[in-house]
Amino acid sequence: MRVLGVDPGLTRCGLGVVDGLPSRQLAMVAVGVATSDALWDVDQRLLSIERQIEEWLEEHAPDAVAVERVFAQQNLRTVMGTAQVAGIAMVAAARRRIPVALHTPSEVKAAVTGNGRADKAQVQTMVQRLLRLDVLPRPADAADALALAVCHLWRPAGALGTPQRAPGSLTAAQRAWATAEQAARRRG
Amino acid sequence: MRVLGVDPGLTRCGLGVVDGLPSRQLAMVAVGVATSDALWDVDQRLLSIERQIEEWLEEHAPDAVAVERVFAQQNLRTVMGTAQVAGIAMVAAARRRIPVALHTPSEVKAAVTGNGRADKAQVQTMVQRLLRLDVLPRPADAADALALAVCHLWRPAGALGTPQRAPGSLTAAQRAWATAEQAARRRG
Repeated sequence: MRVLGVDPGLTRCGLGVVDGLPSRQLAMVAVGVATSDALWDVDQRLLSIERQIEEWLEEHAPDAVAVERVFAQQNLRTVMGTAQVAGIAMVAAARRRIPVALHTPSEVKAAVTGNGRADKAQVQTMVQRLLRLDVLPRPADAADALALAVCHLWRPAGALGTPQRAPGSLTAAQRAWATAEQAARRRG
Repeated sequence: MRVLGVDPGLTRCGLGVVDGLPSRQLAMVAVGVATSDALWDVDQRLLSIERQIEEWLEEHAPDAVAVERVFAQQNLRTVMGTAQVAGIAMVAAARRRIPVALHTPSEVKAAVTGNGRADKAQVQTMVQRLLRLDVLPRPADAADALALAVCHLWRPAGALGTPQRAPGSLTAAQRAWATAEQAARRRG
């Protein structure tokens, strides 16, 4: 099972690929950042980010793409670009029939540190430890992308994609996961 | 000069194509709404909307695409999906090297009614009048898409794309337009 984590952003979009199986050690495959020039028009920036994401999808052929769920209440200055990059990553995956899942920031933090309100340094430290990296993954966007992939690999069985669905369509296990996610959101 | 106006939305995305030249009567070419099923996952909904927008780009071959600028302060329940559809429309155009411009809702209302705070009925009435339609354009999303195209055709010379650029890169005329746009934003 190979997961591409995407921490969306218009200036820097974190990308991280992790391999994992339920009973096996996690392994980092690749980590990096897609960037776009802030002097360009938004359409050209989005196109540039899309091309970089598509290169990662082609090169690493992930089984799933985990994208950070963006909330309207986040940083007002950047949230529109962040939401647009998240949308572009989702469509790039959907075009290739790769399953897409959304995970909240607090869900990701809880998955790798045990604390949904952990700070960036704690997330970086745990990502380094879990993937047995020689150095801290930098920048923070890259570490977040790896953490998203780890979070997705460690999700409860059957939870793929559930955060996207309407409550009525969930199984009991999926509902429990969705409830935990909502609780994490309220805390986060 | 043919413009595709896009009023972005995940459930209903208004699309309207208008032909116009500075000294000629405006003419509606097509109007409609791209839709997606709210029961689907977000990635599949975005993919479906993307395909419908691409069909319009292929069929009508616009010279420019005018997209409504989405603000983070808009309806919190739907703004993320709206922003994502706006991003997807921009990239679909950019992939085909079609210029993209963003216009604010108040800029569009001011262009077709003379009042940046006009209501939906007033916009519909003026769109019907300006394009000499037999009936009111419905739904409102479709009328808004036509109004976006009209607004873009009527913009000041040289203003294409300016709302996207950083202030430092503007000409004097472009700065005047940007200032008027900002004023409209504060009023709207």
